[in-house]
Amino acid sequence: MPTLITLLTDFGTADGYVAEMKGVLLTLAPGATIVDVAHDVSPQDVECGRLALARYWRRFPAGTVHVAVVDPGVGSGRAALAVASDDRFLVGPDNGLLSPALLLRGARAVALAVPPAAAPTFHGRDVFAPAAAALASGAALDALGAPHAAPVVRRTSEPRRLADGGIEGEVITIDRFGNAVTNCLGLRGGSIEVGGASLPLRRTYADTPSGAPTALVGSSGLIEIAVRDGNAARQLGLARGARVVFRPAAL
Amino acid sequence: MPTLITLLTDFGTADGYVAEMKGVLLTLAPGATIVDVAHDVSPQDVECGRLALARYWRRFPAGTVHVAVVDPGVGSGRAALAVASDDRFLVGPDNGLLSPALLLRGARAVALAVPPAAAPTFHGRDVFAPAAAALASGAALDALGAPHAAPVVRRTSEPRRLADGGIEGEVITIDRFGNAVTNCLGLRGGSIEVGGASLPLRRTYADTPSGAPTALVGSSGLIEIAVRDGNAARQLGLARGARVVFRPAAL
Amino acid sequence: MPTLITLLTDFGTADGYVAEMKGVLLTLAPGATIVDVAHDVSPQDVECGRLALARYWRRFPAGTVHVAVVDPGVGSGRAALAVASDDRFLVGPDNGLLSPALLLRGARAVALAVPPAAAPTFHGRDVFAPAAAALASGAALDALGAPHAAPVVRRTSEPRRLADGGIEGEVITIDRFGNAVTNCLGLRGGSIEVGGASLPLRRTYADTPSGAPTALVGSSGLIEIAVRDGNAARQLGLARGARVVFRPAAL
Repeated sequence: MPTLITLLTDFGTADGYVAEMKGVLLTLAPGATIVDVAHDVSPQDVECGRLALARYWRRFPAGTVHVAVVDPGVGSGRAALAVASDDRFLVGPDNGLLSPALLLRGARAVALAVPPAAAPTFHGRDVFAPAAAALASGAALDALGAPHAAPVVRRTSEPRRLADGGIEGEVITIDRFGNAVTNCLGLRGGSIEVGGASLPLRRTYADTPSGAPTALVGSSGLIEIAVRDGNAARQLGLARGARVVFRPAAL
Repeated sequence: MPTLITLLTDFGTADGYVAEMKGVLLTLAPGATIVDVAHDVSPQDVECGRLALARYWRRFPAGTVHVAVVDPGVGSGRAALAVASDDRFLVGPDNGLLSPALLLRGARAVALAVPPAAAPTFHGRDVFAPAAAALASGAALDALGAPHAAPVVRRTSEPRRLADGGIEGEVITIDRFGNAVTNCLGLRGGSIEVGGASLPLRRTYADTPSGAPTALVGSSGLIEIAVRDGNAARQLGLARGARVVFRPAAL
Repeated sequence: MPTLITLLTDFGTADGYVAEMKGVLLTLAPGATIVDVAHDVSPQDVECGRLALARYWRRFPAGTVHVAVVDPGVGSGRAALAVASDDRFLVGPDNGLLSPALLLRGARAVALAVPPAAAPTFHGRDVFAPAAAALASGAALDALGAPHAAPVVRRTSEPRRLADGGIEGEVITIDRFGNAVTNCLGLRGGSIEVGGASLPLRRTYADTPSGAPTALVGSSGLIEIAVRDGNAARQLGLARGARVVFRPAAL
């Protein structure tokens, strides 16, 4: 099977930057298959990229090379990384974007050399794409650079237990449907307080009347707040960081 | 040739949901080729997805597996379908999205089993992608589920003949250019009334001065209303459902 | 290796037009690999498409077929082109979009025949996709049409030298980050005047405090004006055509 190379960026596509990366990849790794993940990450929103990457990187087959570039610090002193983790490879800036793979036991990271001719504003094309092509062509991780001991790691904030037994968390991202995803695991059932309301956890969107707010356990196990046939973030005025309190069901 | 799997969703790509589906597909059907159709369908706009699907599904080679997920009812009692029609396969929710293929003589549909572990909010990843991968790997339709007798079917509204010989129709979709596509076939020529204006059918956009409204027979045979170098929907205040009257040319 | 066919359009994807083209391509050239460049080019913005194409077309391997369709004149008398240049092929309307390839020494262009059944509003599907599939399948350029002597060529405006030694240029495009790309080459260093400000050229975005305007030499060698962690076009009120003056460093 051809090696898969996935691409996540915040470049949009209209300017041709992503196409330049694809041209480099397919020139240096002509047998690889490119898979677009996303190019519409909000500009420089490392956190959004990190949360997306957490969802997909292990869904791909072993051997896949994931390129992720949301890189406000491009050309600065921040390292450029290649990572091996759980039989996949990842390539991207050392700003926490690759944390989901770095946090796994056994992950290894190397710092990529930046060629003197690399554009200081476009490591996607001149550093990350060549490294990904090398990995896709069978290069060993250690052939790409020296071990990088302490990569930047970002973590989703942990909810905390309140004196009254509630679990205080927050909204960590708003998805395209306006669903507000929180950092609270909701496997046991219960209800979540947000704004002035208390929403019992439902099974799916359709368990609620159209236009009404609801809460449920989303497809990654986290509680999310939704409005059926509507946009919860807009309707309830929710943004990243909004406080929620989860009240787990009694055992 | 590798089997083609096309993907149409309303998920956007930034959240990583589509990437999760791609990972599942390429894990379960490693030899398949994924073709992105669209992920920018307006959230939960089944009608827009249906009209797009009508355009493309038979343009692909026999054997192609089309996955289409615009699914406001995910996790509810609505069935999950796999369809065989005109030597192609389709997979998606039973909400009318797949109607273009279902309406063809000889179409067959089965109801997919929903695994107990499937996320009730993400059948794209846990039901439709595995079914598509199975079909792409050569599974028979009937191996995926029991026949589903009466799938939901949506049809484009039919224009109706007026007493004065006109044909009353409506705008069925607005495309990215702001062109308003109607449900009137316009092969014979004539003119179309919309708002207070009457627009004779032209051959192409460039047959009209820049900025002026015009009408023509679009690439699927339906009359559309356009503004050359402009946006007809905005300029003429047209939305889905707007009434038009087509006056065919005399024979 | 399979032949690569890249696609750049202003069609968006939700309407299914791009998918129709992909279906035609994969039916007529079943062994080809399709690479999405962009479908979010601003509607009918030939100039934006041309500048993007200039970035990527030679980054792809020899033999690649680039399809580019931003085509306000579709169906009019404008020619439909296939071009061979620097061992790549290009297909698209004769409106200047393909200029980067046409301007290279040795480029050859032929005018594609428009089949009588082609939709006058959709040459992407009925003219350009079939021509691209033919080229991807090994057809010779000259088998596709008669030589086209004087294709439309667009050039980026040239900066001009002022009496005081400055170089007067302009903003030629705004990218997704709000960076304003100018037509001034900046290899020697210096500073650029825009609005009332004078911005010394920096190496990369991170050489400037967050929120501050800066200038640097972008990844295609042109000076661009940026705001670190912000949007320069919005913050400085810059649009295409805005005047700038580059003051090169003294030798």
